[in-house]
Amino acid sequence: MQVVVPFAAETPKTRLEGVLTRSERLRFARAMLADVLAAIDAAGHEPTVVSTSPLSFDGELESVPSSVSVEIDDRALTDAVDARLPDRGGDPIAVVMADLALATPAALESLFATDADVAIAPGRGGGTNALVVRTPEFRVDYHGTSYLDHCEIARKAGVSLEEVDSFRLGTDVDEPDDLVEVLIHGPGRAPDCLRTFGFALECDGGRVGAERLENPAKEP
Amino acid sequence: MQVVVPFAAETPKTRLEGVLTRSERLRFARAMLADVLAAIDAAGHEPTVVSTSPLSFDGELESVPSSVSVEIDDRALTDAVDARLPDRGGDPIAVVMADLALATPAALESLFATDADVAIAPGRGGGTNALVVRTPEFRVDYHGTSYLDHCEIARKAGVSLEEVDSFRLGTDVDEPDDLVEVLIHGPGRAPDCLRTFGFALECDGGRVGAERLENPAKEP
Repeated sequence: MQVVVPFAAETPKTRLEGVLTRSERLRFARAMLADVLAAIDAAGHEPTVVSTSPLSFDGELESVPSSVSVEIDDRALTDAVDARLPDRGGDPIAVVMADLALATPAALESLFATDADVAIAPGRGGGTNALVVRTPEFRVDYHGTSYLDHCEIARKAGVSLEEVDSFRLGTDVDEPDDLVEVLIHGPGRAPDCLRTFGFALECDGGRVGAERLENPAKEP
Repeated sequence: MQVVVPFAAETPKTRLEGVLTRSERLRFARAMLADVLAAIDAAGHEPTVVSTSPLSFDGELESVPSSVSVEIDDRALTDAVDARLPDRGGDPIAVVMADLALATPAALESLFATDADVAIAPGRGGGTNALVVRTPEFRVDYHGTSYLDHCEIARKAGVSLEEVDSFRLGTDVDEPDDLVEVLIHGPGRAPDCLRTFGFALECDGGRVGAERLENPAKEP
């Protein structure tokens, strides 16, 4: 199965700008991408990064598996993914978001092992964090409550739909509150990256959060 | 398997006090409890509610399955659960939080079907949302990052531990941001309860949220 990983190389993780500088967000986004690619490779598939601009395979991306290929596509997410969905008789396509820092090979295998025409791992807030499409009758729409929109698109097309129930695939890392999940459950480089930036777990009585203990000098 | 559902009958969902009145929080907590009990029953198990005070089986709890029993225990969560963990040779015990409004029979079956000495479905922020204990060598500690604490307790006791990877079991409903998950994915009474209160989905460009469109008169 071809596994597509869309990556916004130039505008990484803008909703983390309150807690990370631009260069930190770039490093962190690349560390999460590296973790996702390693998990897909370990699950036995060859990932294709669909990046908005060329990627340099150094730093956080230095040791990505050799199975990884890159395609440059500067279109919006929906258009870039739609262009890669299967034609009639074509192979299934999986689409895995680049910020699923908790993804493990086992969690991804539960997605790849589905057999419905469309399988979706929903994320927080109605997102579509990971997807498998096995039919030419489906198209994507990542705007808004994409999970509900994708359910509706599948229903109208008369194709079968399966929900993949995974905490790991359901956790995309977009907002400061998500960082704690990376520190607790992240299996790869992303939690090390946050610890390098000075983040650690803190407990305020309710849910545990991620607190920045050291605050490196701000960028100009 | 005995399935224990702890329920704080008198102080329901205090972290929702910014968006729901006390009587609404009580109704909503009871609706979520009813959903959890129905899912456990449909998964083929008999739930025991361990409540801090007597429960009236009317309103949201009117149609709970006849398999439900209630025990009153006003101790703190950790003590009330610890007192019910299996003795040597005793039957396994599952502990399922009363605010898992997204729980389905299938998600619970993935928990009950584990065979490790201890199986944990982690929640957001390091919580322990659902648990199966099959050994007398384990005790619980729900304070702080209970997921990490429970992993450490299992490791020190030398018992086997399995993580149950479920978005549905990983979503406990504590904070206003969690309400959107109930509206999108809740299978039972809880989303109807929120809609009765005037909540609906709204999209602000990032993740979708739950917005209160009508605001009933505040309680005195």
